[in-house]
Amino acid sequence: MAKKHSEMKVVHKPAAVHSPSLLQRWFIGRPLPTADAPHQAIGKRVGLAVFASDALSSTAYATQEILVILAAAGTAAFGYSIPISMAIVALLAIVTISYEQTIHAYPDGGGAYIVSRDNLGTLPAQVAGAALLSDYILTVSVSVSAGVAQILSAFPGMSHYRVVLAVSLVMFIMLINLRGVKESGFIFAIPTYFFLGMIFLTVGLGMARYLTGGLSTVVDPPALEMVGVSGVTLFLLLHAFSSGTTALTGVEAISNGITAFKEPRSRNAGKTLIAMSLILGTLFLSITFLAHQVGAIPSEGETVISQLARTILGGRSWVYLLMIASTTLILVMAANTAFADFPRLSALQASDRYLPRQMTFKGSRLVFSWGIVTLAMIASLIIILFQARVTALIPLYAIGVFLSFTLSQSGMAHRWYKIGRLGVDEELQEKGSRLQYDRNWRWKMVVNGFGAICTAVVVVIFAATKFSEGAWLVLILIPTLVMVFYTIHRHYANLADALSLAKLQMPNTIHNRGVILPISGVHRGTLKGLQYARTISQNITAIYVSMDEDSDRKVVQRWNEWGAGAPLVVIDSPYREWMYPLVDYIEQATAKNKEGDVLTVVVPEFVPNRWWHHFLHMQNATWLRWALRHVRGVVVVDVPYQVRC
Amino acid sequence: MAKKHSEMKVVHKPAAVHSPSLLQRWFIGRPLPTADAPHQAIGKRVGLAVFASDALSSTAYATQEILVILAAAGTAAFGYSIPISMAIVALLAIVTISYEQTIHAYPDGGGAYIVSRDNLGTLPAQVAGAALLSDYILTVSVSVSAGVAQILSAFPGMSHYRVVLAVSLVMFIMLINLRGVKESGFIFAIPTYFFLGMIFLTVGLGMARYLTGGLSTVVDPPALEMVGVSGVTLFLLLHAFSSGTTALTGVEAISNGITAFKEPRSRNAGKTLIAMSLILGTLFLSITFLAHQVGAIPSEGETVISQLARTILGGRSWVYLLMIASTTLILVMAANTAFADFPRLSALQASDRYLPRQMTFKGSRLVFSWGIVTLAMIASLIIILFQARVTALIPLYAIGVFLSFTLSQSGMAHRWYKIGRLGVDEELQEKGSRLQYDRNWRWKMVVNGFGAICTAVVVVIFAATKFSEGAWLVLILIPTLVMVFYTIHRHYANLADALSLAKLQMPNTIHNRGVILPISGVHRGTLKGLQYARTISQNITAIYVSMDEDSDRKVVQRWNEWGAGAPLVVIDSPYREWMYPLVDYIEQATAKNKEGDVLTVVVPEFVPNRWWHHFLHMQNATWLRWALRHVRGVVVVDVPYQVRC
Repeated sequence: MAKKHSEMKVVHKPAAVHSPSLLQRWFIGRPLPTADAPHQAIGKRVGLAVFASDALSSTAYATQEILVILAAAGTAAFGYSIPISMAIVALLAIVTISYEQTIHAYPDGGGAYIVSRDNLGTLPAQVAGAALLSDYILTVSVSVSAGVAQILSAFPGMSHYRVVLAVSLVMFIMLINLRGVKESGFIFAIPTYFFLGMIFLTVGLGMARYLTGGLSTVVDPPALEMVGVSGVTLFLLLHAFSSGTTALTGVEAISNGITAFKEPRSRNAGKTLIAMSLILGTLFLSITFLAHQVGAIPSEGETVISQLARTILGGRSWVYLLMIASTTLILVMAANTAFADFPRLSALQASDRYLPRQMTFKGSRLVFSWGIVTLAMIASLIIILFQARVTALIPLYAIGVFLSFTLSQSGMAHRWYKIGRLGVDEELQEKGSRLQYDRNWRWKMVVNGFGAICTAVVVVIFAATKFSEGAWLVLILIPTLVMVFYTIHRHYANLADALSLAKLQMPNTIHNRGVILPISGVHRGTLKGLQYARTISQNITAIYVSMDEDSDRKVVQRWNEWGAGAPLVVIDSPYREWMYPLVDYIEQATAKNKEGDVLTVVVPEFVPNRWWHHFLHMQNATWLRWALRHVRGVVVVDVPYQVRC
Repeated sequence: MAKKHSEMKVVHKPAAVHSPSLLQRWFIGRPLPTADAPHQAIGKRVGLAVFASDALSSTAYATQEILVILAAAGTAAFGYSIPISMAIVALLAIVTISYEQTIHAYPDGGGAYIVSRDNLGTLPAQVAGAALLSDYILTVSVSVSAGVAQILSAFPGMSHYRVVLAVSLVMFIMLINLRGVKESGFIFAIPTYFFLGMIFLTVGLGMARYLTGGLSTVVDPPALEMVGVSGVTLFLLLHAFSSGTTALTGVEAISNGITAFKEPRSRNAGKTLIAMSLILGTLFLSITFLAHQVGAIPSEGETVISQLARTILGGRSWVYLLMIASTTLILVMAANTAFADFPRLSALQASDRYLPRQMTFKGSRLVFSWGIVTLAMIASLIIILFQARVTALIPLYAIGVFLSFTLSQSGMAHRWYKIGRLGVDEELQEKGSRLQYDRNWRWKMVVNGFGAICTAVVVVIFAATKFSEGAWLVLILIPTLVMVFYTIHRHYANLADALSLAKLQMPNTIHNRGVILPISGVHRGTLKGLQYARTISQNITAIYVSMDEDSDRKVVQRWNEWGAGAPLVVIDSPYREWMYPLVDYIEQATAKNKEGDVLTVVVPEFVPNRWWHHFLHMQNATWLRWALRHVRGVVVVDVPYQVRC
């Protein structure tokens, strides 16, 4: 499309699109034009499938993680899992009601970062950003590890490949996301409803058996690893509670993605949120109840879900395998959700200049490629470090989610407070506030405020009970990340200042004082450099760093023949260094620069035609350019000499 | 020192020597001037210490490796170790006599590479080079692993740190060698004579006890791991023989280092060789004999040397510890020898242009730093892969040594044949041959020829009996290396051709067609680029790759204000690529180049003042330079813009 803003502008259209390499096309697909960005709205049923996988999938491990902690007080303590789960479901209800309000207040998407930034300011927003980014990474590590644990429950013979399987899955999800998801939400619907079908079948059958008294206990359960080392203390119960709160991770997903819903967006999104929470709460309670009834044992070797499934579904049958497959699939989908959330949030932070600008660039397939790759790399590293063991990862997980819950709800509470002030504070109204008065503001402030307090309490419980197990790492990581964000921000701000034309007079013109031509010998490449130098200056000095007299004499003699009268400076280098003497000479020469003077260093550079040839050469030109980059008043010219050999 | 070869030359002296970083000074030491190269000659006694460590140290594992193989036929088969050792000592005698002749024929150093190159041609020389380089690497891996095995025999509690200890030792030896060895050979003499003292004490005491009937058997020997899986077959005996031939590794060291000896060099070196072989043969036979008498068991947990030492020296006493320490030390010295040999040989091959030129450069401490680091890295990798287990490494080891023995002796035999022809073939004499007639040529040819045949037979036995255990790897590696050497050589030869001035007429002058100035925005950096461009051409075109219309309009408007009348081309990039459209535009522009025309691309480059800032920027200038390096008729100018922020 030819556009004309001014006479000065000429529009050029590239001949064709850059054809990607075969490898790239195979894995990533052909490039997509910017105009192809999707604009598709989804209904409640597909919306549930798209956004619920993260939240629902946590039922696959939350019960087990409660039991792992209780096991310290012996199997008799497993009964406590039921009241603990009830407390968690109550918390779920509070968070759901809070977020339902957010969805209506932020119809364009109200993630914790945006809500904090709008209502609390920059620092809370960056804290929320740090908390969420860490948690998205852990979502990938935990969900994929839990998915692998399901596979290994069904096929224990593969247990040597736990880490390999998990990392391969992460790489697979990364590639899928680098391709970009042009597919409709329908594709997402399949695994979610498959899982819901299988889990409700299992839980329903289990409940029916329980009511008819036909529910047996687990045949041949795994051995309990750590037992009876502690009594039932308040600390232990709170500890188990914190582990169980991982069931709530993912509840915030819908509030991030409201724009994807059909109009009326907020209503549809809100209803979907409530439906999701009802399903989640029911499932979580039922699984915990049934796990207790069948006497499931938390174990690294076989998941509680697998024990439950084979007890209810009649051993390792094909229905059991379908159940395990659906659980694995929903966990992979949960990891996939983080691959949408992490790059989107990091792009948002990068466009606010708190993360490297690269994060804002969309790749050839219209996705934030940098964010996707970064997430996959860090998540894989964590999986390797923790050997893909869910129980080892859980102490790091969820603290970020609850911190962001707290910030988001506090932001909302403050927002309602401001809205309440709209009625009395005219100044606020005059500022052209985007806020709309709401006469229920008091009630809504209380709801969000109560949500904030509850989630804050969970953060404290979590940090206290899991501190020594790994939560300390997150408590160091989040402030560190915030510091890094601020340092990046300061750099960009200073740079914008330094580059600004605001206070610039039309600058003085530059005077080219002459050319310095470093040579490593006299050959065709050198002569091409000399010829180019002669097009930009008459004042040329060649320099040769001499390490032994023999080659020295040869170079001088050949320069006399071919150097076209330009003087040659020979620098002795008794320590066999070549770069330092050269940089030293150039620095001394620039000392004579006046304001606006520039010295041009012309570097003849040999360009080999195969990549491995680079290892056979010293890359002197590259090193010299690198060494000279901080020397003011110097411009480096590469004169390439292409050789076919 | 100011030198004047011609009026054209000006000599510049650097202000000071480049001061190395603190880290570098601490580990490597201050730079040494070229004039500091050592010129010190050593006598026979020090010569023995310097060159014998590699050969003598192999007595620390050769016996054990014979027993490991024989163990497959049960402990009763251990008796065969004595005739096998005798055969190996006979082989040692043959190799020694062969090499004694080489030493007299090549007073300037006659390693297998040089001898093969002189007498057999390029291909055999490169095969010898490949064989020797692989074996030097394995010398480091095997000797250090064997040294660690001694330490672990004395301190079994440290067995978890086997690999860590071995790799740390390699790194330590690397650092020592990067410092360079200015110290006299005297330093080397201490560990060698310490070892000789301790081992002769042990062996002598053992023999005395045996003769007086007071030699007991090993108390509490380690368990035998694999036993009785095979009968005593010819294959088994040959297999054990091949393992034992590792005792001969290092015998060639003196022939490489003749120049280090006092005059008469060849005589002194020859006598040292014979003394070394006598000691080696005696020690090896005695150790094998005594190991059999005390019933030593080959084991990964405790070395045969350790079992022997504690049986003879009265348990784990301090004398025992001294013996173990001296054995560890001599093994480390053997590894150290490879750190002298590998870089020297690779520099030799590099100066013949069969390896990257970097290998010929002496570092700041006058050593071939590249070779030292390469050796340390590969040897460490092998140690990690084989978990520092000597028995696992042995099948790879020694095959290269015997291949190089064979090539070297064949070369010598051929040399004697040519010398014999001197008497009859006048043409040969006229060519100004450096060969001197020797009337004993027939006898000497038979000696070297017999040596060649014997060592060739060992190569075949070795390859056949150890093929499946790992020798296949070496049999693939050596031809692969030779192919790599030839590929490198071809590249350098073609390059020299392409750069040669031989057939060059004084070339046409270059015409600078104009400047292309890619910009990413209009700011101070861009304007500096524009000003520089104006010093070299009046024909300037700015290019901007547009990804969205907003920024597009801003750039055009600001360019109208600041662009000093230069036209601006805006390229639409629907796929959000910036580099491909730019390169495409520049390629199209160069299509109009006539012979000798050049287009200059001026790239304003922002230079941050902290290294980590690089991660916050896209490095567009670097990528563009890289993409343009193959486009003919283009010169790239970096105009750096240094920013403090």
